[in-house]
Amino acid sequence: MTARSSKVIELTILSDEANDIADALQEKIAENDSFIGADGRPLITLKQISTRLEDVNAQAVTVMLADPDLASRIINNCTALTWCQSTWAGNAPLLSENKNDYTLTGLKGIFGKLMREYVFAYLLGHARNTRAFEKNQRAAQPKWEASKRVPLNGQTLGIAGLGSIGQALIPVAHAFGMQVVGLTKNGKEVEGANAVYTPDNIEGFASACDHVVNLMPDTPTTQNMLSHRFFNALKPHSVFINAGRGSAVDDDALLQALNSGELAHAVLDVFRHEPLDPDHPFWKHPNISVTAHTAAESQPSDVADVFLENALRYIKGEPLKYQFDFEKGY
Amino acid sequence: MTARSSKVIELTILSDEANDIADALQEKIAENDSFIGADGRPLITLKQISTRLEDVNAQAVTVMLADPDLASRIINNCTALTWCQSTWAGNAPLLSENKNDYTLTGLKGIFGKLMREYVFAYLLGHARNTRAFEKNQRAAQPKWEASKRVPLNGQTLGIAGLGSIGQALIPVAHAFGMQVVGLTKNGKEVEGANAVYTPDNIEGFASACDHVVNLMPDTPTTQNMLSHRFFNALKPHSVFINAGRGSAVDDDALLQALNSGELAHAVLDVFRHEPLDPDHPFWKHPNISVTAHTAAESQPSDVADVFLENALRYIKGEPLKYQFDFEKGY
Repeated sequence: MTARSSKVIELTILSDEANDIADALQEKIAENDSFIGADGRPLITLKQISTRLEDVNAQAVTVMLADPDLASRIINNCTALTWCQSTWAGNAPLLSENKNDYTLTGLKGIFGKLMREYVFAYLLGHARNTRAFEKNQRAAQPKWEASKRVPLNGQTLGIAGLGSIGQALIPVAHAFGMQVVGLTKNGKEVEGANAVYTPDNIEGFASACDHVVNLMPDTPTTQNMLSHRFFNALKPHSVFINAGRGSAVDDDALLQALNSGELAHAVLDVFRHEPLDPDHPFWKHPNISVTAHTAAESQPSDVADVFLENALRYIKGEPLKYQFDFEKGY
Repeated sequence: MTARSSKVIELTILSDEANDIADALQEKIAENDSFIGADGRPLITLKQISTRLEDVNAQAVTVMLADPDLASRIINNCTALTWCQSTWAGNAPLLSENKNDYTLTGLKGIFGKLMREYVFAYLLGHARNTRAFEKNQRAAQPKWEASKRVPLNGQTLGIAGLGSIGQALIPVAHAFGMQVVGLTKNGKEVEGANAVYTPDNIEGFASACDHVVNLMPDTPTTQNMLSHRFFNALKPHSVFINAGRGSAVDDDALLQALNSGELAHAVLDVFRHEPLDPDHPFWKHPNISVTAHTAAESQPSDVADVFLENALRYIKGEPLKYQFDFEKGY
């Protein structure tokens, strides 16, 4: 790496979380020698850091790390802009503007890493019955007591929706000695999955699984796909995790199946209406764990990681990752 | 596989958990065609199932799956015995008997699989803050709220004690995008570990880690090895898991470090005195999770798995795994 050919980044951060992102960036930059030039000067400086449009001098923006809804409102004045790294996966607000003489990159490559931790946190928590140990410990008289467990080793994980996020679960499942089967629209083979089912054989898919994670997108064909036929084919020890979309699940069918012991536990991160209605029966059900659409929610540190991955490429003059194509619109 | 050469097993189970083991065996045998002979008859039949010595006809015992303490009291009368699979890892009660004209196998090969699920259940539970979500959900007014998380991805797991159980954690750590460093007596290189430290540089080891698992055995050199020098070199976000031996940890140093924020949380499965004294401050500490020496505790299903793995070999006339050597005594 020669300093001569390195581009320097004077960064503008415009985001609701600008300060947390800036903190994360500064910490990570300080830990990494790649961001120091041959002359000992930093290759990235944080020039403007703001949560408010009004504080940003648009003319001075060259590289921007920004929430697309905020950025879209000043982007046409950013005449010196060369690169905008978005803090979102999607970029609709920016794509609807006319400006397209800059490189726009999305927040990608991190959701699989987040999702695999979420899914296995709950599968393992159930397998090792951590809630029972916690209850024993916090009782008025603490209890020294073994709790039932059902190891993941040797079991089969079903993944409905095998895109990049779903596929990110496969190596982890294998590391725990699990088999993997999938459910996809076309049933095409996927590396690491022993079998891939199609929606017309959803009972076959459910019967093959010990535990199931739904990661399917919200499309007309996935509406209520996970209903009686699916839940009734699960096993009494099965855990069902929904981290895809709430519309895929028939809520009543799920409640009925839990109440009749067709499965052991459900972990729900997504719902038909979010936030989940305070009166919804999911909240109070003892065999349901509710999380707040946070399974793969990025945090400032994730945003910093994706930006710095691309910043290294920018500095070296290499093509950036996760670029949007303004013509295609994605 | 030819039925002609297959040996048939008439099994005696003598164990405190004989009935649960028998249930697990029957379920697993029914799922596996390998245990049906070419003539359609089962290759394994459960002949005697008992929790009590008095109920066992010792003369009729040919293959036995047994708790070694119980088995040792009838073993000398088991004149037809060819193989005894123990339900324990150790076999002291049987090794102290004179009888050695049979094959004795131990319960092995399962503890790494159990331990990796325990360790990651607690690391991920902490990383995803599952207790906070549970608290939000079970509040009088349920709360839809994101909770802080610190992803494991990119972090470093320290493993003190890199025997077969410790090494079983490495592929799982890698699958989650973690680095691994080790602490061992001799500091020898271990595949998959970026560095292996020795006890004289315990601060170096602790400083290299985000989270640490202790799996060291109870030896004179490990007594109180994890004390102020160790805990004070951890990070404010560190989780410390002790699933080795209680004697390795200086209890007061751990409490002091937790109280002063030198680490975030401790997960303790083993203690100097077990069961843990009901008045011990570990029970009530908000940043300690206590489990009941159950991290790698085998269950009837595990015993069934190890027995069946060896039974397949026995049926085919192959050498059994996990054999004890009566001369060497281990």
